Amino acid sequence: MVSEFEFIDNIKSKYGLSRVGDDCAVLPKDAETDLVITADLLIEDIDFRLDWATPAQIGHKALAVSLSDIAAMGAEPKWAMLSIGFPQDLWKTDFADRFYEGWYALARKYGVELVGGDVSASPDKLIIDSIVGGEVAKDKAVLRSGARPGDGVYVSGTLGGAAAGLKLLEQGGTDVETTKKLLEPFPQVTLGKQLSSLGLLTSMIDISDGLSSDLRHICRASNVGAIIDRAAIPIDPAIASHFGPDDALALAIDGGEDFQLLFTSRERLDLDGIIQIGEITDAPGEIFLKDGGTRTELRPRGFQHF
Amino acid sequence: MVSEFEFIDNIKSKYGLSRVGDDCAVLPKDAETDLVITADLLIEDIDFRLDWATPAQIGHKALAVSLSDIAAMGAEPKWAMLSIGFPQDLWKTDFADRFYEGWYALARKYGVELVGGDVSASPDKLIIDSIVGGEVAKDKAVLRSGARPGDGVYVSGTLGGAAAGLKLLEQGGTDVETTKKLLEPFPQVTLGKQLSSLGLLTSMIDISDGLSSDLRHICRASNVGAIIDRAAIPIDPAIASHFGPDDALALAIDGGEDFQLLFTSRERLDLDGIIQIGEITDAPGEIFLKDGGTRTELRPRGFQHF
Repeated sequence: MVSEFEFIDNIKSKYGLSRVGDDCAVLPKDAETDLVITADLLIEDIDFRLDWATPAQIGHKALAVSLSDIAAMGAEPKWAMLSIGFPQDLWKTDFADRFYEGWYALARKYGVELVGGDVSASPDKLIIDSIVGGEVAKDKAVLRSGARPGDGVYVSGTLGGAAAGLKLLEQGGTDVETTKKLLEPFPQVTLGKQLSSLGLLTSMIDISDGLSSDLRHICRASNVGAIIDRAAIPIDPAIASHFGPDDALALAIDGGEDFQLLFTSRERLDLDGIIQIGEITDAPGEIFLKDGGTRTELRPRGFQHF
Repeated sequence: MVSEFEFIDNIKSKYGLSRVGDDCAVLPKDAETDLVITADLLIEDIDFRLDWATPAQIGHKALAVSLSDIAAMGAEPKWAMLSIGFPQDLWKTDFADRFYEGWYALARKYGVELVGGDVSASPDKLIIDSIVGGEVAKDKAVLRSGARPGDGVYVSGTLGGAAAGLKLLEQGGTDVETTKKLLEPFPQVTLGKQLSSLGLLTSMIDISDGLSSDLRHICRASNVGAIIDRAAIPIDPAIASHFGPDDALALAIDGGEDFQLLFTSRERLDLDGIIQIGEITDAPGEIFLKDGGTRTELRPRGFQHF
């Protein structure tokens, strides 16, 4: 069975789709500006559970995941559409009102305007397709494909918190601060724009599937390899009280949904909160984890639908 | 329980959403052009059935419904995104390949480029969100809100065929030509642009919910009423062999998914295939069906999710 990544690659090559495959599609807008646009499908019991999250948290997250894609292009979010399928029993409650309140609280922060979408009945599961459009200076969108050997590899913050929150919820845990990392992720919109304005980034992606998978997406698109320094990976400190060091590292490397930015720069960056975790190499597809004197292959163990 | 139309009205007024509520949202693109954009959520067993339609027909229809929204603005479709949730059992088959073939056959006709979207697993039902972007000359998008008393009310072709196809399928029938009207609708993209280029249209909508409901959407947005001439309603001739005259008229008036255009014009239009069915009046919300000397209220009995 093919993974969704292989499937998308197949469709891309079969139909010659040059704009498919980054965090956002980039389309010409006017002489100075490009339009970036992204869609994220969130389905009940695949991407969220109604017994774990409040309606407002689901609304927040639906927008946050798409804002994170806009951030990963170094772009500014402008407008959004929401297509939602409501099961009858949920439609009869105040769920939709609470959902939109959560969505709006985040939209307001970034001046994002809801311009359209669709409202439909659904047979059983709540279905949300979140679409966000943004703008970036012409030809300045930061793609996945520009990483070059010698570039530094950076992340925008600590990793593994969302995956730890998921594990805690699965185990019936109730550490609100940790589960919030999963349920109310913070999209790095301001930082994404700031980083891109430096003019030094060669590639960027948001960590939605997990560091090990998303780094591979960059390496694949850029036709390069990477070496990551195990000791440099910033493990979310909230994990330590719940998991041992090996599990904590695995959560930080393979856990998805932290929505930190992963990016490469041709010059050394020295910004508050930014952490260099490795370097790009000229060996396509070879991605290693370096631990002192030993190297092991960093396999993509992040989230996969199929 | 509120209908989805009331719900959207509530959200519009609560959050002051000026761009929500037409077939497409209209956004500024550049000095000469506006961007129009639409999203349509199609869910298995709500909007289509896998045992009625081929994968290619489902792909065709997913794009057709959104192209029809672009047509209803008088705009030209340019690009599309597809968010799809596949149940595991469907993912293992060649369904996705056949689906994209159907989608592409229609996309190619109008030069529509697939630029992005999302691929996800779904617990049980196939889920498709179809997003299409198009372009129209600045401030020339034909909205629902411009109909004025005295304008003629027109449709772009015969009505009721898709609803008749649905009834036949529900009854286990196999009239391929009639069921095709439901399963392979034809979006009026070329006609929509041609009509809008006349500069005479005051409002337009595509008939997706049904004439009686979609006419009400125009009257509501335009704050006007309408009188429709029963004898002028163009009933799809394919219906006559399956249904009596009263049922046939009901299918043409209340049946959805024909994706013909419904529009109003300030001057009399005399174009091949275009049919005048009535006139706009100055009585807001009063919509009548005129049959010789008698008038009855034309109630919105078209499709509603809730």
